[in-house]
Amino acid sequence: MIGSSPPRLDGRAKVLGQTAFASDIRLPGMLVGKILRSPHANARIRRIDSSRAEALPGVHAVVHAGNVHQRPFGYGVDNVPLKDHPRYAGDEVAAVAAEDEEIAERALEAIEVDYEVLPAVFDPFQALEADAPRVHDERHDIEGNVSMRWDFEHGDLGAAERAAAVVVEGTYSSPLSAPASIETHCCSAAFDPNGDLDVWTGVHMAFMYRKALADALGLDWRAIRVHQPPIGGSFGGKIDIDPLDFITVLLARAARRPVRIHFTREEEFVGSRLRQPMHIHLRTGADAEGRILFRDADIVSDNGAYNAWGSHALLVVMQTISSLYRLQACRVRSRVVYTNKPYGGSVRGFGNPEATFAVEQQTDELADALGIDPIELRLRNANRPGDVTPQGMRITSCGLEECLRQVRERSGWERRGRMRERHRGLGCAAYIHVGGGARIYPSDGCGSILKMDEAGRVTLISGASELGQGSQTVLAMVVAETLGVPLSAVRVVQDDTELKPWDVGAHASRTTFVAGNSARLAALEVRQRLLETAGELLEADSADLVVEDGLISVRGSPQRAIAYDRVARRRLLRQGGSTLIAQSFYDPPTEPQDEHYRGNISAAYGFGAHVAEVEVDPETGLVSVLGLWCAHDVGRALHPAGAIGQVTGGAVMGLGLALTEELGLADGHVLQPSPREYGMLTALGVPPIDVSLVETLDPEGPFGAKGVGEGGLIPVAAAVANAVADATGIRPRSYPLAPWKVLEWLREPELSRVRRPT
Amino acid sequence: MIGSSPPRLDGRAKVLGQTAFASDIRLPGMLVGKILRSPHANARIRRIDSSRAEALPGVHAVVHAGNVHQRPFGYGVDNVPLKDHPRYAGDEVAAVAAEDEEIAERALEAIEVDYEVLPAVFDPFQALEADAPRVHDERHDIEGNVSMRWDFEHGDLGAAERAAAVVVEGTYSSPLSAPASIETHCCSAAFDPNGDLDVWTGVHMAFMYRKALADALGLDWRAIRVHQPPIGGSFGGKIDIDPLDFITVLLARAARRPVRIHFTREEEFVGSRLRQPMHIHLRTGADAEGRILFRDADIVSDNGAYNAWGSHALLVVMQTISSLYRLQACRVRSRVVYTNKPYGGSVRGFGNPEATFAVEQQTDELADALGIDPIELRLRNANRPGDVTPQGMRITSCGLEECLRQVRERSGWERRGRMRERHRGLGCAAYIHVGGGARIYPSDGCGSILKMDEAGRVTLISGASELGQGSQTVLAMVVAETLGVPLSAVRVVQDDTELKPWDVGAHASRTTFVAGNSARLAALEVRQRLLETAGELLEADSADLVVEDGLISVRGSPQRAIAYDRVARRRLLRQGGSTLIAQSFYDPPTEPQDEHYRGNISAAYGFGAHVAEVEVDPETGLVSVLGLWCAHDVGRALHPAGAIGQVTGGAVMGLGLALTEELGLADGHVLQPSPREYGMLTALGVPPIDVSLVETLDPEGPFGAKGVGEGGLIPVAAAVANAVADATGIRPRSYPLAPWKVLEWLREPELSRVRRPT
Repeated sequence: MIGSSPPRLDGRAKVLGQTAFASDIRLPGMLVGKILRSPHANARIRRIDSSRAEALPGVHAVVHAGNVHQRPFGYGVDNVPLKDHPRYAGDEVAAVAAEDEEIAERALEAIEVDYEVLPAVFDPFQALEADAPRVHDERHDIEGNVSMRWDFEHGDLGAAERAAAVVVEGTYSSPLSAPASIETHCCSAAFDPNGDLDVWTGVHMAFMYRKALADALGLDWRAIRVHQPPIGGSFGGKIDIDPLDFITVLLARAARRPVRIHFTREEEFVGSRLRQPMHIHLRTGADAEGRILFRDADIVSDNGAYNAWGSHALLVVMQTISSLYRLQACRVRSRVVYTNKPYGGSVRGFGNPEATFAVEQQTDELADALGIDPIELRLRNANRPGDVTPQGMRITSCGLEECLRQVRERSGWERRGRMRERHRGLGCAAYIHVGGGARIYPSDGCGSILKMDEAGRVTLISGASELGQGSQTVLAMVVAETLGVPLSAVRVVQDDTELKPWDVGAHASRTTFVAGNSARLAALEVRQRLLETAGELLEADSADLVVEDGLISVRGSPQRAIAYDRVARRRLLRQGGSTLIAQSFYDPPTEPQDEHYRGNISAAYGFGAHVAEVEVDPETGLVSVLGLWCAHDVGRALHPAGAIGQVTGGAVMGLGLALTEELGLADGHVLQPSPREYGMLTALGVPPIDVSLVETLDPEGPFGAKGVGEGGLIPVAAAVANAVADATGIRPRSYPLAPWKVLEWLREPELSRVRRPT
Repeated sequence: MIGSSPPRLDGRAKVLGQTAFASDIRLPGMLVGKILRSPHANARIRRIDSSRAEALPGVHAVVHAGNVHQRPFGYGVDNVPLKDHPRYAGDEVAAVAAEDEEIAERALEAIEVDYEVLPAVFDPFQALEADAPRVHDERHDIEGNVSMRWDFEHGDLGAAERAAAVVVEGTYSSPLSAPASIETHCCSAAFDPNGDLDVWTGVHMAFMYRKALADALGLDWRAIRVHQPPIGGSFGGKIDIDPLDFITVLLARAARRPVRIHFTREEEFVGSRLRQPMHIHLRTGADAEGRILFRDADIVSDNGAYNAWGSHALLVVMQTISSLYRLQACRVRSRVVYTNKPYGGSVRGFGNPEATFAVEQQTDELADALGIDPIELRLRNANRPGDVTPQGMRITSCGLEECLRQVRERSGWERRGRMRERHRGLGCAAYIHVGGGARIYPSDGCGSILKMDEAGRVTLISGASELGQGSQTVLAMVVAETLGVPLSAVRVVQDDTELKPWDVGAHASRTTFVAGNSARLAALEVRQRLLETAGELLEADSADLVVEDGLISVRGSPQRAIAYDRVARRRLLRQGGSTLIAQSFYDPPTEPQDEHYRGNISAAYGFGAHVAEVEVDPETGLVSVLGLWCAHDVGRALHPAGAIGQVTGGAVMGLGLALTEELGLADGHVLQPSPREYGMLTALGVPPIDVSLVETLDPEGPFGAKGVGEGGLIPVAAAVANAVADATGIRPRSYPLAPWKVLEWLREPELSRVRRPT
């Protein structure tokens, strides 16, 4: 079972269009909710008059900051669901619930808002200036617009710098981009007659969502049940609770009817969390043999208007700067800066693509400066099993060297540096990422309940969330393998906080590792009890039994056998019988980071390396990726097709980031809120992608597996940029590598702007 | 908590009309199914032509015996979903699935069936004759129309008879009646793209239903999930799998679309299981002191066309004949006889009202013959704790005497025998019934899964089925009481075979006892773990802790306290934390009956006594019940209002049986398939009902409780008949006590027909 690639359990329904997503849910009496958004990037509401809207026939509720009870929420406790002081163009100001879409739209138009427009700041460097408008003038706990700082230091930076033969330096910038999942956000909420609240949403951290919902709206969280319908793509965009969710509940409460808010495509870009721009000024030094001695970073994260998950992406940025390759010393200073713009969430990779873009270009820059082959330089510095990184990350299984060798071999790396006349080049980049959970919350655990019934049907109730990544199938495989029963006997339930045990949520590529281990523990217990009964029936010691494909037999006496489901029946259907149910909880053996950002946050780390081949059109600046070779240390591929799919999907997303995706703003307004104009890749834009899975058999992972959900995306922009450098000699300092930008660099090669934070 | 009567958890939604019953379920693409029924009581189908129906636009499937694969099912393996040989008028012959009701009706009309009409038999005594038409000519394993025999013997009947001072004898007949729940049957079925079948149905023995469905249709039962929406009344009518269910699935398979069949009111009477008529010839003897010495019964059960649950009601009939009051000897001979009529199911009381009608009238007849007060006679013979009955039933807690004393006192029993001039009378009847499960299947157990989450919300996943009896509320109370948390923190999930552990089903008044004990075991385990953690936090021995209303404190130091939900959080949200989940299984300490019908089938027995006061109009024969006094040994009333409601509801149902309810047939055709014509009581027909709950604190029951679901119904007809005898001097030998019948008896008092089976 493990290592095979059966069809996904949810595949057929999805392919046939029969999956009911959040937006397919209809409840009796359900109303349509719509949100009124601020047209101004910074404004105070002097007066809001919803009386005309409320009077419209078919309108059941109009809510705004003036008529609801709400408390601040978010990592900066700086956000409220409905604002009397919107801080970006698109901020939620009011909402209506009406019989249908059209009435709701008319009601929005009928709300009169008198704004006092205030000066706004859009550039994070301007926002750092002393006289910049303060985005959160009410926050007296911070200085200016710097909402958070993440500073880390390890080793003797001065000594390392003095020992360096070469030091390279640059500022690497990433754009405002969007997770841009095909399914837009949708939330439905209904109070039942007992006052219990049911919410249907795309969130994949359901228990934390429940708490946040209760806290901000003053509800009893014991009375909230979160349903998680199948998710049509999240990529982190649905990880968090959003004003959308609070507003849906506020409307349902005000209207005393179920309410659904379903984002339009345009709203999805404006009203969801984005990947915030980052400007990483980085210096890296190495000795003459190419040993990397230090990294020194100064980072400005262009947070946008509120502190959501995006404000914490620096955790991951820091991790890559401190821990990708062996280092002697490291310093990271970073500031999360408020601007009057859409704000950052946790998008796939969560800071790591941005960090890797900086770190891995400088690895190439070092290699160039030292005249060492870039992959050779990486191999010399590669993390190895047993290493402890400056932040205290304990590397156990580690296939980074093998990944580098694989992509070197498969890509025809020897061609590097020899194709410049043909405007072609090869570039490599590697990454490190958590692969065994990430203890960002006191519990990083996952609970499971496993039940085998008298028919032999096995139900796993898992805390894990399915967000399209295939966790349902992989968890079922883990259970089937452990129990020795056919996959077709296993069902997975994981969509309802009422039923499922705690799990912190689907993030940080943790589900296969953490939920897989949890499912395995429960299955082992059921297996043991099953074998006990089988032992009685077969008159054998249960230790002598083997299970294969649902048949339990005595080792060496295959004729002494009994079907597993018959054993389950015989165990239950007798006087003094019993069920086959077990519960388990797996919390990885990790530790939270201390106040100095030290601690082994994950029970395993994933590694990988990519090589990209590009061709750059010198006339237009168009960068075409001709091929991408990816090798990923996944510990063990439980479902190879699924793992390859994850890597490939991530790589495609990475190519979009590298080449085309950027959400342009003008005066804080999103310029192109549509997938086409935003620049999402289509199938036509995707080059051949070659994926190798490196199996290092992680000692802690389920059957040796590690997380793989985000890796495919992380090194793409860096590899492409390094390939562009190989093809052209220019050094890209920002992505996407849009033709106009590349053309500019080609024409003025020294233009790689070292924009140093002040 | 225990002993209080909080509002039912499902009450508010039901009162507000917001409960979604089975018939409220709509699935995408769902079709309407309709069944074509035989107009003949016995016929062979020569030819069936569905081509015209199939050709109708909007028709998606037409099924009949000729185009489906089906296997025989039922206790006689004598039934199939779709018949080529219908055996009663109303038998299922074909079915259609169409876009809407109207098209479905037209399609039914378009099916051409060529019947060869065969002779039919409607009277069970005629069916016993040698030359009677054989209802199941294909059953070579039986003789004539006797499908089953249930014979039991205990003690020396001859000696007991010789010792008797008086012997009374008579035949007591009960009619064909209907459970007549307000909600008619409804089944919906849908196959998902993986071939998994989901069924939504009112069944309350879901796991056995799943197996029966798979067996008859040749499906993999591991691929079937049974959903149990709230039930709008069953009274046993929805206990079993019916042709309706199979046909819905056959249609869904043929149409490749979800299908719903929802019975019309008329169909509910014709196509559902009924309470089969029974004719109990009984002789009872007693000595001069009124000690009952023996009972000797010869029973004909008018089964109808197929053996469903109804064929097994003799088990319960036998139990009352052998075990109500102390006996020395006992003989039961009984025959279950096929007739070409609608067939019997398991209606509330399941044979016991019929048996009690016979037994308890003869108790009065003995009392009359001996000149002993009927209640006094009952007290002399009452079962007592420690008794073992002739069938091996071990009486533990027993409040029969107390019940008899209570109704004697509360009813003004001293008036008995003194009101004949005013045409009024008082009558008493008592009962015995299983109250601690009933091991009719190898497992009589129930599993529970209990989860307390980090919010303090408690979810009980119980195998038990809620069929309107209030199990959800009582199980939540058991959990809240055991854990010491508020009831508002507890939710109960019990409607889905995917989630819930095994339970044999809701029958035999077993849910509070069996599922209550199961829930209690799981809660005790969670409580223990909760207190362990609380002990750590409070630095106290967990044995010294008390929990009250959600607050855990150190005994004697109430200031050393912590909220239970905080303990749950502290336990989970830490390194090495864990969830609070437990699972349990409770199977009562009982034994199946052996081949001689001996065995302690239940872990406790319920008892009760009723007194009815009637007035009989000598001009019209109309019997009016003026009052009903009921005392029931419920062990302990966990939710007194609920227990009283159960008794009262049962009593009202019993009054309907006693006075009005009878499903008349003409040539096997139901004459009055409507609640009004059938004669269901309305609120106006219900007299004052006085209910006393006698608490004997059963040693095995949860908090001392015993089953109470059926008791209220059982002795009503007997008590009313005895009251009529007191008022008029006539001895009713059958019910309902319809005016025309009573008038006939009044005019010809010797008419009590002793119709002895041949």
